[in-house]
Amino acid sequence: MKRIVVIGGGTGTFMVLSALKNTPDVHLAAVVSMADDGASTGLLRDQYGVLPPGDIRRALVALSQSSETLRELFNYRFEGGGLHGHNFGNLFLSALEKVTGNFATAVQEASSVLSIEGEVVPVTLDDVRLVARLSDGKIIRGETNIDIPRTAERARIDEVWLEPEARMNPSVRRVLQAADLIVIGPGDLYTSLVPNLLVQGVSEAIRASKAKKVYVANLMTKYGETHGFGPMDFFREIERYLGRGVLDYAVWNSRRPPEAVLRRYRRERAEFIDPRHLPTRHGRTKFIKADLLDAGKFVRHNPRKKLGKVLMSLVNR
Amino acid sequence: MKRIVVIGGGTGTFMVLSALKNTPDVHLAAVVSMADDGASTGLLRDQYGVLPPGDIRRALVALSQSSETLRELFNYRFEGGGLHGHNFGNLFLSALEKVTGNFATAVQEASSVLSIEGEVVPVTLDDVRLVARLSDGKIIRGETNIDIPRTAERARIDEVWLEPEARMNPSVRRVLQAADLIVIGPGDLYTSLVPNLLVQGVSEAIRASKAKKVYVANLMTKYGETHGFGPMDFFREIERYLGRGVLDYAVWNSRRPPEAVLRRYRRERAEFIDPRHLPTRHGRTKFIKADLLDAGKFVRHNPRKKLGKVLMSLVNR
Repeated sequence: MKRIVVIGGGTGTFMVLSALKNTPDVHLAAVVSMADDGASTGLLRDQYGVLPPGDIRRALVALSQSSETLRELFNYRFEGGGLHGHNFGNLFLSALEKVTGNFATAVQEASSVLSIEGEVVPVTLDDVRLVARLSDGKIIRGETNIDIPRTAERARIDEVWLEPEARMNPSVRRVLQAADLIVIGPGDLYTSLVPNLLVQGVSEAIRASKAKKVYVANLMTKYGETHGFGPMDFFREIERYLGRGVLDYAVWNSRRPPEAVLRRYRRERAEFIDPRHLPTRHGRTKFIKADLLDAGKFVRHNPRKKLGKVLMSLVNR
Repeated sequence: MKRIVVIGGGTGTFMVLSALKNTPDVHLAAVVSMADDGASTGLLRDQYGVLPPGDIRRALVALSQSSETLRELFNYRFEGGGLHGHNFGNLFLSALEKVTGNFATAVQEASSVLSIEGEVVPVTLDDVRLVARLSDGKIIRGETNIDIPRTAERARIDEVWLEPEARMNPSVRRVLQAADLIVIGPGDLYTSLVPNLLVQGVSEAIRASKAKKVYVANLMTKYGETHGFGPMDFFREIERYLGRGVLDYAVWNSRRPPEAVLRRYRRERAEFIDPRHLPTRHGRTKFIKADLLDAGKFVRHNPRKKLGKVLMSLVNR
C-alpha cells in the first residue's frame, strides 16, 4: 500500500485525486487550503462565520465512491431566487459545521455520507484570510481579490501571507508522516498552493516526512498571479515558501498545445509555460519534462493516462 | 412481519413513526401530503418549481437509522443572512430533485443517505395547491393560508380540494395493498390529513386494502381549522373524505390535561377534545378511548408507551 498526499485546493487537486483514484494499493489523502473566500464560500463565511467549504467539497467529491447522483448533488449550484450561486455541497458542510460546532467533524461526517475512500484534511482549522503585497506596494486582502484582478493592469505579487497566523490541523502531520509521495500542485500558485505552505508547521512537516516530494507545475500562466512567469519562476516561488532542496522532483508538461487553442488563452493573457530550456536538475531536485497534455479545446493535464502514470512511476521508483 | 402505513404529514406523522420505529417485526411506511407551501418549503416551491420537501423530510428523519448528527443536520434551519429560515433537509431534497429531475428519485436517494428503515411515499408527484371554501363563501388558496388564519375571526371550513386534481403516486397503492394496519392521523385535519384523501384513488386504495384502518384523533382543536369541533366532528369529516364505514377503529385520548396547561392553550383558542360522551361504536367503526397523554407542559401524545401500544394491540388483534 502506497500512501499519496496531494496538497492544494481547487480544480488542480481535484484532477490529481481523480487521476489516482481507484489505483490498486494506493491510499489517497488531500491536504486542502482554507483561504478560499469567493462566491458561495465567501457568502457563507461572511454570513454564518463558518470555515471555507469549497475546496474541501471538491476534494471530497473527487474521492467519493458514492452514486453519480450524490456526487452531482454536491456540485449542484442553485440558480435564481434567494439561493442563487450557492453550491449545495458548500451548504452541506456549513450546516454540518453549525450542527456539530466543529469543521473537522463536519468533514468527517460528509466523508461518510459521500463514502469517500481516502481522507480529506483541511490544512488548518483557524479562520484565516489570504493577503498579498504587490511590487507597487499595494496590499490586497482576500483570496478572491487576489485571484481575480479588479484592475486592467496589476503589478507582480511580491509576497503573500495569512492573517491571523494559522496553526496546522494536527491531522496534517499524521498524513504527511505516513506518506510515501507528497504531490504539491498543480493549482493557482498564490491562491491554492502557497496558502497551505503558509500555515505554521506545514513546510516543516513536509520536510520531515520520508516521502518523496514532487511539485507539479501548471500548464499555463495566469494573469494577476503568474503573468510573465517562466517555468523556473514557479519552482523558485514554491522553494521560497517550502524551503530549498526539499523537493525530490518537479514535473512540467513538455507538449505545446495547438496554436488555435493558445490563441484563445492569450485573450485572457494566459501563456504556455515552456520548459524546453530548463536544466535536468536544480540542486537535489530532478526536473521531469513529459507530455502530460490532454487532447481537446482546453489546456489541461491528462489525468489518468499521463500525469497519473508519471506520479505512480515516482512513487514506485 | 406486520406492515404499518401511516398517512398524514407534519408533526403528528413524525410522532407516530417515532412511536413505532424499531418495533420488532414491524415495517413502516409513511404516505405524506404534498400540499405544504409554507416557510422554507413555500419559498423553494415558488423560486425553484420543486415539489414540497418539508413533510417528506420530517418523515425521513423519523425513520432514519443514521447518526444523530445527520438527523440534526436534516432538521437544521439557517438563521440570518440570505439563507434565513431555510431548512437544510428541504434544500437537500430540492437540490436532489433538480439534479435527478424527479422528486421520487430524490426521496429514494435521501432515504439511502439517511439510512431509513421503511419507506416514505409522497402521496402524489403532481404539483398541487390546497384550496378551502369557508362557510361565508370565502375561498382561501394555499395550505399555509388555510393553516394560519390572517384575520381575527374566521368562518368554518366548508370544503377543501386540490388544484389541479392530483393523481396518486403508484407507490401508494403498493404500500396500502401490502399493509396490515393503516393509521390516519393525528395531524391537522384539513391541512395534513385530508390533502392525502383528496388525491384521486387514495380513498379507494385504502378501502380496497385488507389492512385494519384506524383514525387517531387530535388532542386539541385548532383555531382556523377545527375551532368548536367536538370529537364526533373529526370523525365525520374523515369519513366524508374517506368514505363511510371504512374505518375499523377511531382512537381518542381520554385523559384531560391539567387545567394550568389548558389555560395556556386557550390563549391560542385551542380546546381539549373530550371524548367522554362518544358512543363505543359508530356503524362498523369501533371507538377506542384511552389515556394517550404525555406528561409535560405541552399537550402531546405519549408516543411509545401509550399510543404505540394501542396501535400495536390493534395490528395484533
